Amino acid sequence: MPTGRLRGKLLPLFAFLAVKGAVAQGSFQNNLMPQPASLSVLSGELPITSQLRVSTDGPPDPLLHRAVERMIFRLEQRTAIQFTEPFADGPDAPIQIHVVDHGVQRPALEVDESYTLDVQNGGLKLSAQTDFGAMHGIETILQLMQSTSSGYFLPAVRIEDTPRFPWRGLMLDPGRHFLPVANVLRTLDAMAAVKMNVLHLHLTEDQGFRIESKRFPKLQELGSEGKYYRQDDIRHIVQYATDRGIRVVPEFDMPGHVTSWLVGYPELGSKPGPYQVEHGTGVFNAALNPTLESTYEFLDEFLGEMSTLFPDEYMHIGGDESNGEDWKSNPEIVRFMREHHMQTTEELQAYFNTRIQQILAKYHRRMVGWDEILQPDLPSDVVVQNWHGIEFLVQAARSGHRGILSQPFYLDHHSSAAQMYAADPIPANANLTAAQQKLILGGEACMWGEQLDYNTVDSRIWPRTAAVAERLWSPASVRDVPDMYRRLAIVSLEIDALGLEHISNPERGFRQLTGGNPEALRLFASVVQPVDFHDRYLEQHTGPLTPMTNVVDYTVPDPLSRLKFAEEVSTYLRDVNGSANAQQRAADRDVLEQTLREWVNAAQVLDVQAKREPRLAAIAERRKQWSELANTGLDAVGFIESGKPAPESWVTSRKTLLQQSAQPQELVDFVVLNPINDLVEAAGAAARSQ
Amino acid sequence: MPTGRLRGKLLPLFAFLAVKGAVAQGSFQNNLMPQPASLSVLSGELPITSQLRVSTDGPPDPLLHRAVERMIFRLEQRTAIQFTEPFADGPDAPIQIHVVDHGVQRPALEVDESYTLDVQNGGLKLSAQTDFGAMHGIETILQLMQSTSSGYFLPAVRIEDTPRFPWRGLMLDPGRHFLPVANVLRTLDAMAAVKMNVLHLHLTEDQGFRIESKRFPKLQELGSEGKYYRQDDIRHIVQYATDRGIRVVPEFDMPGHVTSWLVGYPELGSKPGPYQVEHGTGVFNAALNPTLESTYEFLDEFLGEMSTLFPDEYMHIGGDESNGEDWKSNPEIVRFMREHHMQTTEELQAYFNTRIQQILAKYHRRMVGWDEILQPDLPSDVVVQNWHGIEFLVQAARSGHRGILSQPFYLDHHSSAAQMYAADPIPANANLTAAQQKLILGGEACMWGEQLDYNTVDSRIWPRTAAVAERLWSPASVRDVPDMYRRLAIVSLEIDALGLEHISNPERGFRQLTGGNPEALRLFASVVQPVDFHDRYLEQHTGPLTPMTNVVDYTVPDPLSRLKFAEEVSTYLRDVNGSANAQQRAADRDVLEQTLREWVNAAQVLDVQAKREPRLAAIAERRKQWSELANTGLDAVGFIESGKPAPESWVTSRKTLLQQSAQPQELVDFVVLNPINDLVEAAGAAARSQ
Repeated sequence: MPTGRLRGKLLPLFAFLAVKGAVAQGSFQNNLMPQPASLSVLSGELPITSQLRVSTDGPPDPLLHRAVERMIFRLEQRTAIQFTEPFADGPDAPIQIHVVDHGVQRPALEVDESYTLDVQNGGLKLSAQTDFGAMHGIETILQLMQSTSSGYFLPAVRIEDTPRFPWRGLMLDPGRHFLPVANVLRTLDAMAAVKMNVLHLHLTEDQGFRIESKRFPKLQELGSEGKYYRQDDIRHIVQYATDRGIRVVPEFDMPGHVTSWLVGYPELGSKPGPYQVEHGTGVFNAALNPTLESTYEFLDEFLGEMSTLFPDEYMHIGGDESNGEDWKSNPEIVRFMREHHMQTTEELQAYFNTRIQQILAKYHRRMVGWDEILQPDLPSDVVVQNWHGIEFLVQAARSGHRGILSQPFYLDHHSSAAQMYAADPIPANANLTAAQQKLILGGEACMWGEQLDYNTVDSRIWPRTAAVAERLWSPASVRDVPDMYRRLAIVSLEIDALGLEHISNPERGFRQLTGGNPEALRLFASVVQPVDFHDRYLEQHTGPLTPMTNVVDYTVPDPLSRLKFAEEVSTYLRDVNGSANAQQRAADRDVLEQTLREWVNAAQVLDVQAKREPRLAAIAERRKQWSELANTGLDAVGFIESGKPAPESWVTSRKTLLQQSAQPQELVDFVVLNPINDLVEAAGAAARSQ
Repeated sequence: MPTGRLRGKLLPLFAFLAVKGAVAQGSFQNNLMPQPASLSVLSGELPITSQLRVSTDGPPDPLLHRAVERMIFRLEQRTAIQFTEPFADGPDAPIQIHVVDHGVQRPALEVDESYTLDVQNGGLKLSAQTDFGAMHGIETILQLMQSTSSGYFLPAVRIEDTPRFPWRGLMLDPGRHFLPVANVLRTLDAMAAVKMNVLHLHLTEDQGFRIESKRFPKLQELGSEGKYYRQDDIRHIVQYATDRGIRVVPEFDMPGHVTSWLVGYPELGSKPGPYQVEHGTGVFNAALNPTLESTYEFLDEFLGEMSTLFPDEYMHIGGDESNGEDWKSNPEIVRFMREHHMQTTEELQAYFNTRIQQILAKYHRRMVGWDEILQPDLPSDVVVQNWHGIEFLVQAARSGHRGILSQPFYLDHHSSAAQMYAADPIPANANLTAAQQKLILGGEACMWGEQLDYNTVDSRIWPRTAAVAERLWSPASVRDVPDMYRRLAIVSLEIDALGLEHISNPERGFRQLTGGNPEALRLFASVVQPVDFHDRYLEQHTGPLTPMTNVVDYTVPDPLSRLKFAEEVSTYLRDVNGSANAQQRAADRDVLEQTLREWVNAAQVLDVQAKREPRLAAIAERRKQWSELANTGLDAVGFIESGKPAPESWVTSRKTLLQQSAQPQELVDFVVLNPINDLVEAAGAAARSQ
């Protein structure tokens, strides 16, 4: 935890809370995220010195060796210690890594990911059934590291760990906004750091066809505006993911969301065309024509080609939001439906899915699709990705289908980490049998790409997604929210060290918008977050060409910095309610008042800076409200300290301000209204102690 | 300029100073860097709106079109305005770009880089002889942009601009520490922003052979430890550079600095081998054997292959620091020298150079080399890169050789921007004829790679190198140092926007070293800089594997933030000397005292943070001195305000502190000692006014 009481410090001083199996002992800090299934703290430590050496017994295993190389590199970067001979193998090496089965060289749904870690005085032993279990253990080692002024060390612990769910995914959407390879690679680094194991790539969209087909080159040549992954890129991504124990599941969304396919191959469409790549957002009518054999011949060849690039057993065919409009307006398709006794376009889509499923089976691939594919005759090996509400996931499990949970983990809704953390793929009240529970494979955080670009994407995903990762890995009983946030702040810095830009891109934005005087804007960004997807869509339609350099783009969902203020308010109000002596109460009051005065000052600075910067001028209402909220807080403290309740008229007017401030506006929402409201209510009540 | 008086603000409020040809008018801010040859401020402006359109008359010219695309993108990113139809060509487009000769599609030493820019109410016209002149004009447009709360605009100006020197280079050294392609590309972006036009790539070193040879693959396979540019990478770099008007001059250092060549091809060496890639730093003995015809046959094939990758007319063969040791200890080579009547190894190297020069001529390449190649018989078309002192450059020009200046621009010496800015390739006292002056082609900032890595390299180069760029582009009379620093801070943010990491990497380091509480360390980094190359070498030998994550690696040479303190001190001392009324003096004193008190506080915070972080513990002496220096400043102000001179014993002890603080220590040097010294001296003198 941070030391010293600095202005603008990031981490609130949450009390350390022990988790299941973990016993705080001595100075041990359990910063692990996700929390392991079982952890015992022992006494002693393993110092990290230049003499550190790692032994990986067993036959040569390049996958494991590369994982150890990365561990060495990260330990060296973290400590600035250069290890003399880190790879000098042998039974006396302080770090011993033992993998039972070196034959498993590719992650898969059924792979054993468990590991056991023993750190004792002078030695560490990591044991795992597979390389992928060992990789998870390595991430745990890196998270265990602690330091004093005199050196770095691993505390003595025994950890036995295994994931609760086998499918712990993150979906990226380069379809809406292309994400260069570098983005994908660093995302994989961060995923590995929190033990996620599925990268779901939503590769095709109305706005872009993002993968090279050598068989049908017009797909990317005419459908991507030059922004797509070459096959070499994909091979690199898959290898990079494999090196980190991460499966890559590609999605080729069909029969809807296919405008970009049809630019080059209009004959696949349900209307004659021509088609243009979409620059807007929303649900479009374009759809593959499911009545033509030539469509299936094309898809057979295309999916066959793709199966050579993506070795994973699972392939995602989307299936969402196919609205049937282009089908209903095509007489040939209508006739086909009639001839086949189909009443609805849903039935036609079910027919289409069955055909696709046969093609995938030919290539030894299992199908994944969004909720919409769940139709009566769906084969039981298909995996349903749930986005219509968890009740559908539960229902699918009852009817024998495997599924993964997504909707609570939709990152563009900007739910807090706490909200996502609370969403369990197996709800306590679901009453599923053990066998049905096993059909729920896990979940995926989904980063839809309409309202981000390659610069802002990291700040939308991280660190919140680490809370999802913990929900999917750790025992269901791990659910202490303050402790989650404490560790989330630490993980956030860990993935910052890996090169993720969730902190550095907003920081760059603060500099850019303020001519190098970022303090006031940084503070503003600690009290707001981007409005959710739907609210932004109402104010601003963000297409692939929309610049993402407004204030909203440098604010982040659920900023951890908001917690500092919440903590200051709750501490002060606890004091007021009698839990502290006068001196402590005065000190806590000073801290709170200082924060609120800094808000007032910063709002003034932003007012001045806005005279030179239209993008700051564009948040005029929010600047004004911020200042008023700050003064409301100061006034509330004044009333509370006076010992007399605030006048009802004041309370009423402040409630009005809070209501107004709660409306989406200028693309950002306040995230500090609850603590301000608490102050107002406390001021309105008779002060209970003075 | 920044508005509002915020703690830690970056930019001091230097008075705006008009430069040659520039007239400050209305609110016009001349932020251009480099300064143009001539600038007139007119009245009016061109607003930047979503209706902005650009016309490039003349035949289709992909090079120019791509340059305009980049301009559009950067304008959109900078303003968050999405242009509706930016490429809707036509005579009514507000921005008209006219290039006379579209046939020049590759930058070269003789290319016409001049341009003329006319911005008037409602329209802009950019005219240039070549695409490369137009590219410089585009960078000027981007630097001209200003804004108020209501919008962005280009002020009306007329600029006629042409560079003073045709060779304005930056040398990168991926040999010592490999720099991935992404580093090179963003460096090219920054170079283009300040109108530099030569990227000199030092591709081969004792520590690594960094380019793929298909003809001699063991060069990179055995000589690079896997870290080298593939030929596709090089083609991409060259195209990217060409797109920005930048020549790429490759350096293949020979006959010394060749250990990495000899790992795969020991038969080229002067000793039998075997050779290993060097992991240390320094000057090594390995040298090509210049007496064997097989050496020249190899180099002929190799340089022939390289000439297909690098289209520029110039090729650099290094030639530096070949110490002759391995030649002198090889009897065959000694005999060869005797037979050829060579007295010294320098003569043998001259013979070698002549042979290489013949090979280069065969491939239509002109030779560039370091000072050491300047031997009596050197052909006059060879370009000498000066690093032994400018007197050699002047001497070379007198003897008819073309040359470029480097040594004052060695970036690892950590000279201030002001010091580098003062170094003129044609010294005023050189007494060269006009013809001789023309032989001095320009200069190169040289970023030797021993003490950096791919994360820190940007912060060693930028923004200082922009001062070198101005020295090489702008008229010699442009030499106002405070105004240079004012503009340097602005340019620093411009290249930050381009994705350079000279700010964001140190910021990441501050976070990483402090568990997310960077304020104190950021402040510390504003008062120090890395010790210079030689001092660091004495304390720490940094090889290719040394982690670059110590405090020193997050400090930057000549931090602009130091200027704030210098300005506060000089303002206060001016006040004391009677230039301000009592109220102003008190206000300025408060500001200064506040800064010094923040230093004391920050040093205390670092002391606490160091209890958890060995890398902060490692700067214990500097932390202590910083606190003492701050208290010295506060005491000095106290004495000055008392109106009585400080006791001599106090002055003496403070001078001792200053002397001790001036010693290189813990890898960082203070950059605020002069202002502290000024305060001490003022305190020691009788206060003149109260």
